[in-house]
Order: sequence, then structure tokens, then C-alpha cells
Amino acid sequence: MTRSWWGWGQAENAVPDDQCVQLASLLPGLPERPVPVPGAYLPPVRVVPPDALAPICTSLPGERASHTYGKAYRDVVRALRGDLQNAPDIVAYPRSEADVVDVLDWAGYANVAVIPYGGGTSVVGGVEHRGENPSLSLDLSNLDNVLDIDPISRSARIQAGVLGPDLEDQLRPHGYTLRHFPQSFEFSTLGGWLATRSSGHYATMHTHIDDFVESMRVVTPIGINESWRLPGSGAGPSPDRLFLGSEGTLGVITEAWMRVQERPNYRASTAIMFHSFRDGVRATRAIVQSGLTPANLRLLDAGEARFSGTAQNGETVLVLGFESAHIPVEVELADAVEIARSHGGREQDRDRGDSVERWRTTFLRMPYLRDALARMSVIIETFETATTWDRVDDLVATLHEELNKAVREVCDSPGIVNCRFTHVYPDGAAPYFTVIAPGRRGSEVEMWDEIKAAAAEVLHRHRATITHHHAVGRDHMPWYDEQRPEPFAAALVATKRALDPYGILNPGVLLWD
Amino acid sequence: MTRSWWGWGQAENAVPDDQCVQLASLLPGLPERPVPVPGAYLPPVRVVPPDALAPICTSLPGERASHTYGKAYRDVVRALRGDLQNAPDIVAYPRSEADVVDVLDWAGYANVAVIPYGGGTSVVGGVEHRGENPSLSLDLSNLDNVLDIDPISRSARIQAGVLGPDLEDQLRPHGYTLRHFPQSFEFSTLGGWLATRSSGHYATMHTHIDDFVESMRVVTPIGINESWRLPGSGAGPSPDRLFLGSEGTLGVITEAWMRVQERPNYRASTAIMFHSFRDGVRATRAIVQSGLTPANLRLLDAGEARFSGTAQNGETVLVLGFESAHIPVEVELADAVEIARSHGGREQDRDRGDSVERWRTTFLRMPYLRDALARMSVIIETFETATTWDRVDDLVATLHEELNKAVREVCDSPGIVNCRFTHVYPDGAAPYFTVIAPGRRGSEVEMWDEIKAAAAEVLHRHRATITHHHAVGRDHMPWYDEQRPEPFAAALVATKRALDPYGILNPGVLLWD
Repeated sequence: MTRSWWGWGQAENAVPDDQCVQLASLLPGLPERPVPVPGAYLPPVRVVPPDALAPICTSLPGERASHTYGKAYRDVVRALRGDLQNAPDIVAYPRSEADVVDVLDWAGYANVAVIPYGGGTSVVGGVEHRGENPSLSLDLSNLDNVLDIDPISRSARIQAGVLGPDLEDQLRPHGYTLRHFPQSFEFSTLGGWLATRSSGHYATMHTHIDDFVESMRVVTPIGINESWRLPGSGAGPSPDRLFLGSEGTLGVITEAWMRVQERPNYRASTAIMFHSFRDGVRATRAIVQSGLTPANLRLLDAGEARFSGTAQNGETVLVLGFESAHIPVEVELADAVEIARSHGGREQDRDRGDSVERWRTTFLRMPYLRDALARMSVIIETFETATTWDRVDDLVATLHEELNKAVREVCDSPGIVNCRFTHVYPDGAAPYFTVIAPGRRGSEVEMWDEIKAAAAEVLHRHRATITHHHAVGRDHMPWYDEQRPEPFAAALVATKRALDPYGILNPGVLLWD
Repeated sequence: MTRSWWGWGQAENAVPDDQCVQLASLLPGLPERPVPVPGAYLPPVRVVPPDALAPICTSLPGERASHTYGKAYRDVVRALRGDLQNAPDIVAYPRSEADVVDVLDWAGYANVAVIPYGGGTSVVGGVEHRGENPSLSLDLSNLDNVLDIDPISRSARIQAGVLGPDLEDQLRPHGYTLRHFPQSFEFSTLGGWLATRSSGHYATMHTHIDDFVESMRVVTPIGINESWRLPGSGAGPSPDRLFLGSEGTLGVITEAWMRVQERPNYRASTAIMFHSFRDGVRATRAIVQSGLTPANLRLLDAGEARFSGTAQNGETVLVLGFESAHIPVEVELADAVEIARSHGGREQDRDRGDSVERWRTTFLRMPYLRDALARMSVIIETFETATTWDRVDDLVATLHEELNKAVREVCDSPGIVNCRFTHVYPDGAAPYFTVIAPGRRGSEVEMWDEIKAAAAEVLHRHRATITHHHAVGRDHMPWYDEQRPEPFAAALVATKRALDPYGILNPGVLLWD
């Protein structure tokens, strides 16, 4: 299998041309062809690593090309057309933490921007250097081992560069799992999840990866930051919480002790249908406020349910699941179903469980479809947020309204605006939106930008977070800057100066360059 | 009722003299009498507030005396002897957030240290100014209202100066509770809990108050830090987590939106007996690693069980309880009991539930007994920590050994060393130790210091946190300084300079003065 250099995942899994046409059957035209691996399109290399670093560095065109962007729509469209002006000058593959230290030392001296790179799945411009100085993409994929397992405390010491499936393969023989399955799971790394406060498997309670961190090692330009392995502590502000969400701007996460889970032996899941989205919202809220903590509690609006094949009749679907390593969960599922019923929900035939399976399949396939549609000049934007329950109905309604309006204005045509809740809390929910609209070839990125900005403005007006789990990167900076409290921004600036005095780490992310 | 100016809680609830003698019946002597409210013992006032602040400021001796110390053993002994050399020059009672802003503005200009003061129950020197410059104790007790309740999102906007019982009284008519019950509950405030990362009611899962914070308002010397109300977010490092645990050094918390709970309708609890502490440890670990999340899961060693009256026969006791607002919890209790049984536990007659009640009563009475024993020159130290399960047995055994040794050396006599687990996690536990030993009148504080240092050294050697929920204050500084990672310390110094450029906020806490 070959990683696609311009699009999602494995090149072999990309949607074939004829299916691209089918997917966008209402539109004219043929799928755009990605440029071949694009030596010709790359800017010249401006900097050469010192001899000591040469063995771990490369400036081969294919490496530079595949490390230029993340996997935002903007990135995919630019890459498939060979627009690679922001390519890194160097891609470095450290073999050890000492190599990371050496790279940072040299980069500070040589004024080279260092862009930490895990799996490269950022959808917010998190791995694209947009500054003037030369840059180095620091690819951690060689740091991919589970170094230690403590079965008594049920935790594991794991290197940051390991990809999701590889991590699970190393934990499985011991009976453990990290059970962190973001949509990017196959192609993203532990370090990336930690640096961006990824959220994954659990729809309630432990939504973000933050809660599974026991301790971390982070290479900063002024030294290594290693927190103690502690199950809990009240000794000052949490050191780990400073680096969780730091997006490569304060240091390079090299390893972490993570709380792992025993593999679930008991599972029970079902799908509940509602006539209206608002009924579904009320049921979801009632379930999560009852004290139940389902592993899966994903509410799909009618469009989303249709798209994923879980319901075709315009109904809202709540995908509901419990799991446990030790204790049967049928009673909990029955309790949750009962709550849903009291809010107008009707349970699907529980034994079939089709909708759960169908949902999962579509979920993992979605990024490939996105690329296929991009080749047909279809604009696709996905964004997510979170807000408290008192504001959810209004926020979701306003986003539908304003996004449909924006699509009509930008695309001269109606589009599709779907919503689901990916994670829910006793005090609120995380709505996730998908927008699909016909673009004009050559103007897709600008059109996408306009639609994205329209969404972000609504979020800002409603004081809903600019991101629940996609991170800030460069693309969310204007709204993040407004969202965070001013004194906190001052603290972050001061921290950045203290830890990264030469400002080499991922400049332009979290703080203006 | 009158707050004791020198000791714990209400003066009327203090242990009478004859009972003091009984408590320490093996020791000679009579209980020391606290000095009367001690104008004569106070240093002269060195600074006068400006006219604009005069209405909220006082320098009355009683006010200065009662705001000099927290409630550590060290504090109680010094206070009852009239040693008040570190008394604040001024005690200020802001009526509003604007008053807090004005106090900080003036203090920065006048080089007056500002010591945020909630309920004054710090046991780590958190509210005692030890610097040379004049100081002002900023008592937030007038900011004591629940300002807003959002029943849809189940959260409440609460002022920081409200005491535990007063807060619960305001939430109760709405059917809610914060359900945060630290041992200091009656005499400590929301702001204090947040500033020190207090832990309370829940023995598992949401142990620290951190998890119940939706947003916070903090007055810093450079402006007000207000985070958005969000159920969850992945937008950069969490702003709230910087102020949680900041112990009044970065700003003054004035209010917070807190996630509140519905009052529990279903409860089930019991006590399990074990022949050995190690069996109890294994059972506790198995329960918390099973995925069960009991509200109460407190393991008492034989000495602790005897002291609290839950078992007299040298057995270890596990106090176990579940609760829920909506869902019966008998099944969960039965599951937990079954796990305990498989590790050698025997359930007490469940219906009596005596040991649970007895434990609670002793728990709340304990600080009064501590004061009574202090008056008999008995040394009492309580400290707590947390470590991963793989190190728990060794840490607890070593602490017993080294503390018994230290007591023999320091006191020329054996003492009592008891241990319980207050909070437990899938990856570890929070052991809480009580040390009781006969002191020599006049040397108690020095003897206490030696015993405390012996404990802290063991914690440090085992890389167990210097505090799980008592905070750092001034007394834990040497060990906290060693525990936190160096780059994080540099980040904290930089943050302090950015937010508190004149260094007026609680100097000597978290950072060396």
C-alpha cells in the first residue's frame, strides 16, 4: 500500500474515476487528475542540514511534496494541482529523542522553522509553514514503539510517532487498547492526538484524549519537559495540560505514559429513530444527564442519516452503545432506550444493529469520498464546535440557515448541510457539520474559504468554540484569537518566548507569527 | 456561632478542656489556653489604604489576627500562642468584582502583597504572607451569591466567595447540588476550591473540582480573564486549567459557571472488611479497574478504621457507595461487592450501614480533635499524595516505616501512623496519612516540621506527588519545585511576569519570591 501524496490515506483505496463521476452525478465534467509526483512544482531548497543531521534528513521531491500540507479541503485541492509553494526545505526523520534535540538546537541557530509532523492529517493548516524563512518538517514516524507496559496500573509508555493501527497491534497481545479512534485513526499518531487534544472513541465522559494522559515527555528548545507518572495531582496547574493542545508550538512530544483499557467483552448497541431533530436533541440530553455514560451516543440529523445509510425516511437517528470489559451492559442500554422512548424515540430492531455498522463504515470511508468530490470540483467543508444545551437548538438552526445562505451566494446553487453530534456532555453537545456544494473549477479554495468563514462567524457570535477537536492550526487563528481570554493570550505569548526563544516551533499556530 | 480566630470552625464546637485531657489521656499536663483576641501581639500597621478603598478595608486587630494564618498544625499552634508576626496590615472585603480590580490596581502601585482569602482553611501556608513588604488579605466572603442557574445545561454561575453550606442552600431550591464536599466544606469557598484544585465528594472519576468547571472569571492585574461557557473544547491549551491550581498567584477568581448535579435519589452503600491492607488494596484496584465508578471508595487501614470507629478488630475497611439521580444503583453495588469478595473481602451487614455513618461523623469532627490535641502539645500531621498502583504497596510500607522512625527520633516515643485512600483511579490511588505523636511544649512546630519533611522526602524519592488535593502553598514549595518539570517552571515564571508584573499576588506560592 502507498500513502497518497496529495489526498487521504492509501492511494489504492482512492475512489476510482468512474465512481467520482457517479458521486457527483448531477454535475458536468470529469474528475481532475492529480499532477504526478511533482518535482517540477517545488520551490528550490534554501537550506542544507549540517553533516551531523544529514543521515536523518532528506530533500527528495516526493518527501517534500507529501509533507507540504495536511488534509484540509484547501490542502487537497492545492496539492492535486501541484501548488506546493510552501513545501518544507527538509524533511527529517529522527530515530531517537536525541535526534529531536539536535534538530531543535540546529534550527534555532539557523533560523529554520520546525513543523512537528505526526500523520499529517491536520485539517486546519497545522503542518503547513506559511512564513518566509526556510522550514523543516519533523516527521516522528520512526518513534513508533510501545516502550513499556505496566499491567498493575494499566498504563503504557508509548512513543509519539506511532500510528493508530500500529499502536493497537502492539497493545493487543497484552489484552489492552488505547481505544482512541478519531476519524483519522489509521493515519494519525499518538503525538498528534495529544498535541491537538483529539477526541475519539468515547462519546461521553472521556471525550478528549487529555483524560488518558498519565505523564508526557516533551522536547522543548530549552530542555526536556518530563512530568511524573501520577494518577491525579493537585500540585499547581497541571504541567501536561499546558502541552495538551499546544499544537507543536511549545515543544515536540516524544512519548507519553497513557492509561490503557482492557478490551471490552460486553457490548450492547442500538439505534433510535426520532421524527424531529429537536426530539433527538432532548433525548440525547436526557440520557447524558441521567448519569449514564454510553461509549457511543451519536445523533444524526435526517441528512446525515440518509448520507450514512442509517435512515432514508427523513428521520433523525441516535446511535447508542455501551461497552465494558467486566460488567454486562444490557441494563444500561435498556435504561437509555427507555429514556429515549420517553422523548418520542422508537428503537430499531436491536438484533440487526445494521445502522451502527453502516455508520462506522461510512465514517471511515468519508475522507476518501471527500477527495473524490474535490476532484469533481465539489466543495466540502466539515467543521465542529461545542456549546451548552441552552444554546444548542438556536446554534444548529442558525448554522443551517446561514450556511445554506452562504452556499447559495457563493455557489449560485443550493447545497447540502448536514449535522450530527459527535460527543455530548451533561452540560452541552459537540455539533459536527458537513457542507457539500458545487464549486467552480479553479475557484474552489476561495469559495471554500468564504463558506468556512461564514460558519466561523456564526460560531463566534454564539460563543461556541471554534473547534471541539479539529484544533486551531493556522486556519482557525482569527477566531481562536477572539475566543481566548486576553490575559491567557498574554500568558501564552510569555510561555512561548520562555520555551521557544527563537520562535522556531510551528510559527503562526496558536500565536501570530 | 462565632468563627474561631485561632483554630478550626466554630468556637462553640471546639472540644472542651476536660475532653482535651481525656483525648490525650496518656500524656501529662493540661490543655494550653489560646491567648485572648490578641491586639497586643500584632505588629504595627505599615500601610493605609487610599480613601476610595477605605470603606471595604479594616485593620482591626481581630480581623488581622483571624486572617494571619490558614489552619495547618503549624498555624494553630502559633496562633493559640499569639505569635502573629505575619499578620496582614489590611483586610479588605470587596463587595464586587470592581472592588477587586481597584484593590489590585492600588496594591501594584503601592507594592502591597495581596493574599486572596476564601475560607482561610489552607493547611500548606497558602494564605500567610512571609515577605517583607506590607500585605493585604483579600477576603472574598461578600461575593457569595449564586448569580444564575441554567436548568437546561444543568450549570450555575456562582461567585467565588460562597462557603460550601451557603452554596448548597442556594442550589437546593432548584433541585441541584455541586456535590463537592472536601473535609473543609463548611468553612471553605468555591474560589478556594478552584484555586487549589480541591477534591471532594467523588472518590473515583471526577475527583478534583477541575472537571466541574464550565468557565471562570479571574481578575488578573493586567485585566479580566473570562473563558467562554463550553462543555468541552479543543481550542489550544485550556485557559481554565492554567488558573485551576494557580493558588492566587496569577489572579483572583471571582466567579465560575459550574456543572451542578441533580440531587441523588438512589443510593446504596456498604462496608467490606479485609484481613490485610494489601488485600484491600487489590480489591479497591479491581473495583476501579472494572469500569465501576462508585461515588465512595475509601479504604481505611486498621489504625484508621479503629480511629474512626468503623472496625475495632485490626481489620481493613473499604467504605463503598454508589448514587444516582435517575437510575437504581443496587446492581452496581452488588457487582462491586462481588469483586471485593473475590479478593477476600467480607461484607458487613448492608442494612446497618453504620460504618459509613460513623466514618462521615468522624471525618467532619477530625479538625476539631486536631486542635484539641494541639492544645495538649500532641503533634498531628496529615498529608496526602498519589501514585500509580505498581508503586502503592511499596510507598505505603515505606511511609509507615520512615514515619514511625521519624516519630521515634523526633519525639523519643512511638506514635500513631494511619493511612487511608481518599480517592482512587484506574491507574493509581491517593493515600492519605495521619501521624499523631507526643510533642514537647514549645517545640511542637519544629518537631512537626521534621516529621513533615521526613514524609515529603519519601514522597519525592518515590516520585509520588507532594499533594493530591491540599495544594502547594508555601510549605510544599521545596518539593513542588523539584517535582515540576524545569521547562514548565520556566513557563510559569514567564506567565507570572506577564499577568502579575509587580509580583503582588500571593508571593512565595508556586514560585519563589
